[in-house]
Amino acid sequence: MARIVMKFGGTSVADLDRIRAVAARVKRQVENGDEVAVVVSAMSGVTNQLVGYCQSLSPLHDAREYDAVVATGEQVTSGLLAIALQDLGVDARSWQGWQIVLRTDGAHGKARIESIDGELLLGRMRGGQVPVVAGFQGLGPDNRVTTLGRGGSDTSAVALAAALEADRCDIYTDVDGIYTTDPRIVPRARKLPRITYEEMLELASVGAKVLQTRSVELAMKEQVRVQVLSSFADGPAVTEDALPGSLVVDEDEIVEQEIVAGIAYSRDEAKVTVRHVPDKPGIAASVFGPLAEANVNVDMIVQSTGEDGLTDMTFTVGKSDLARATRILEDARGDIQYGLLATDPDVAKISVVGVGMRSHAGVASTMFRTLSGRGINIQVISTSEIKVSVLIAADYTELAVRALHSAYGLDAA
Amino acid sequence: MARIVMKFGGTSVADLDRIRAVAARVKRQVENGDEVAVVVSAMSGVTNQLVGYCQSLSPLHDAREYDAVVATGEQVTSGLLAIALQDLGVDARSWQGWQIVLRTDGAHGKARIESIDGELLLGRMRGGQVPVVAGFQGLGPDNRVTTLGRGGSDTSAVALAAALEADRCDIYTDVDGIYTTDPRIVPRARKLPRITYEEMLELASVGAKVLQTRSVELAMKEQVRVQVLSSFADGPAVTEDALPGSLVVDEDEIVEQEIVAGIAYSRDEAKVTVRHVPDKPGIAASVFGPLAEANVNVDMIVQSTGEDGLTDMTFTVGKSDLARATRILEDARGDIQYGLLATDPDVAKISVVGVGMRSHAGVASTMFRTLSGRGINIQVISTSEIKVSVLIAADYTELAVRALHSAYGLDAA
Repeated sequence: MARIVMKFGGTSVADLDRIRAVAARVKRQVENGDEVAVVVSAMSGVTNQLVGYCQSLSPLHDAREYDAVVATGEQVTSGLLAIALQDLGVDARSWQGWQIVLRTDGAHGKARIESIDGELLLGRMRGGQVPVVAGFQGLGPDNRVTTLGRGGSDTSAVALAAALEADRCDIYTDVDGIYTTDPRIVPRARKLPRITYEEMLELASVGAKVLQTRSVELAMKEQVRVQVLSSFADGPAVTEDALPGSLVVDEDEIVEQEIVAGIAYSRDEAKVTVRHVPDKPGIAASVFGPLAEANVNVDMIVQSTGEDGLTDMTFTVGKSDLARATRILEDARGDIQYGLLATDPDVAKISVVGVGMRSHAGVASTMFRTLSGRGINIQVISTSEIKVSVLIAADYTELAVRALHSAYGLDAA
Repeated sequence: MARIVMKFGGTSVADLDRIRAVAARVKRQVENGDEVAVVVSAMSGVTNQLVGYCQSLSPLHDAREYDAVVATGEQVTSGLLAIALQDLGVDARSWQGWQIVLRTDGAHGKARIESIDGELLLGRMRGGQVPVVAGFQGLGPDNRVTTLGRGGSDTSAVALAAALEADRCDIYTDVDGIYTTDPRIVPRARKLPRITYEEMLELASVGAKVLQTRSVELAMKEQVRVQVLSSFADGPAVTEDALPGSLVVDEDEIVEQEIVAGIAYSRDEAKVTVRHVPDKPGIAASVFGPLAEANVNVDMIVQSTGEDGLTDMTFTVGKSDLARATRILEDARGDIQYGLLATDPDVAKISVVGVGMRSHAGVASTMFRTLSGRGINIQVISTSEIKVSVLIAADYTELAVRALHSAYGLDAA
């Protein structure tokens, strides 16, 4: 017997047939003897339609009213799934955020969960009932419905799993797990049976979007074991000794830790170089201060000391922020006193991620040697405790990912 | 300055353009200096779609889950109208039944309103804010959303008007008022500027369906003045000295009371005659007892005493109940010991309605004389304090309605 939160996204509940299929899956899990709570998203397309209504009526609509409108999508799915479960003979009941009570802060449209009182639902679950909770929403301090922002249903599920002290939070999606890299680039990419929270965060933030970042952060903080698995495959009840997906867990739970978990890439960044800057204290602040004020996120940063008391600063910004960053730096030319401003949007960031590199030397040098062996020039390097990232010309993205995937022994047999 | 509840049905908020038009109308009322609260239905078609989802998943779906699903329609409209009002510069806020709190009993799918705490909304209204309340729903004793049944938004509006001690409840519909009879039959039918609750109830229950019967009963009990008016006509703010619609009010408010308010008709009933029944005590119970047990409603009843200790009983049932009623009476033939059972679905009930007939003799005799003058045979007669109804052959329906409309001086000049 396990206590499990099962979460189904919009494509998994896209129509009545798929809702019936979800009900059948939940039933198998209940018949396995597990205590089950379910979290659902809106039927796919519904949220977009409701958002469209709000925007069409007023581009600057009130976020409180937006929340009242948009939260109905999940409310409908929760009621429908409860009906479908009852039709299969499974005792079920729908719950909205304001009923259970799932409290959030007052940041309408992007609220953060503050607390869930799990006792009400736990009592029901012990009595054999399946709570079907509307994801993505809660109750704000003003007694009004709040929504958590796009992808918030993952966070709802993890928060509920924490409140219920569930053994596992199973996130059913349109992929069957977390892979060592993008299988469209590397057909021999392997599904990872287990991955740490930290690795998942690094992989998610550099492009492998499967779970919402906030949900992983919350899972790490609350030590919720999260499994990513496919809602399309039609398997038996999921048991701990034969998990079909990828389990995101604490490092301690992974006995045979690989040094490198995966290779991620992102083509969403652009390179900015400010050349011939006077090399004196405070110059970094004069470059990055105006960008921060304008809410432009800066990622990789290198500073190369040159001759003549001049230096070059290179960094990356989001591609969509490049025009704005350029304008800001041109305006600040007088303050910074740089010689030349160069930008390049045709770059890719390639990252090698793995908690094992904390205790293993040589990961970075393997990376540099592999890329150099393929004639790929490294423009910028940045490192964290569990990640080494390099910036290269975008044309070399696939080549670099494939070469690194092989070099770290990640290819499937 | 007046305090007004404005209620808009599904066709009045059918799409974003119509929601904008409603917002403009509410704005005019606010600019007139009135305190305004609004009650809305779901956008037309939405409720049917949601009901269809529930039925498709399970014909015998749980009424609590049905309510959770179906109540979202009004929730969406309330949020969207609040946004549209804000876009026009009108301070507005949406409210769900569970927020204000509109308490109902626990009869999911057909709940009855028990109380509304008006203070929360009154405070907002005094501050110049327009509450936009989702109609058709409330909060049941189990802390779950309940719905009031079809047409329940009218009842929501009247209940809210009572709680707010509003001067008037304006129900915007697709007709522009209550007429002396069906204008499709009598082109010279007149719009009634005022009509009493009692008359409205009699007219509604015999076929002139404009307001939900329960909403009129509630208005009568709570002494809420209700105006029926068109949401399509595009007029100025509505003021008490120039009401464009029909006002449903207490008798005391109608100074020049007409004797007859209107002529109603219904083709929804069928005639049943049980002939040659032994004329002894308890025989009516033996006829109507089995029908009542089977939930068959019986309307007009006459008993004609004959010779030989035998009698005939004639009555009407709903046309859709006729087959069932026939079967029940055939099964009970041994108990009742009747000679013959005859049924006739081709009948029409014509009613003359008016509170004035309480104090004026001759209303019934005018009716009988008028019908007889046209060669129309009266099959059954029934009377109440403010109504005389007759059953005639259905073919004569229009002729009878026109003749009576003229006879009571109701034709427009």
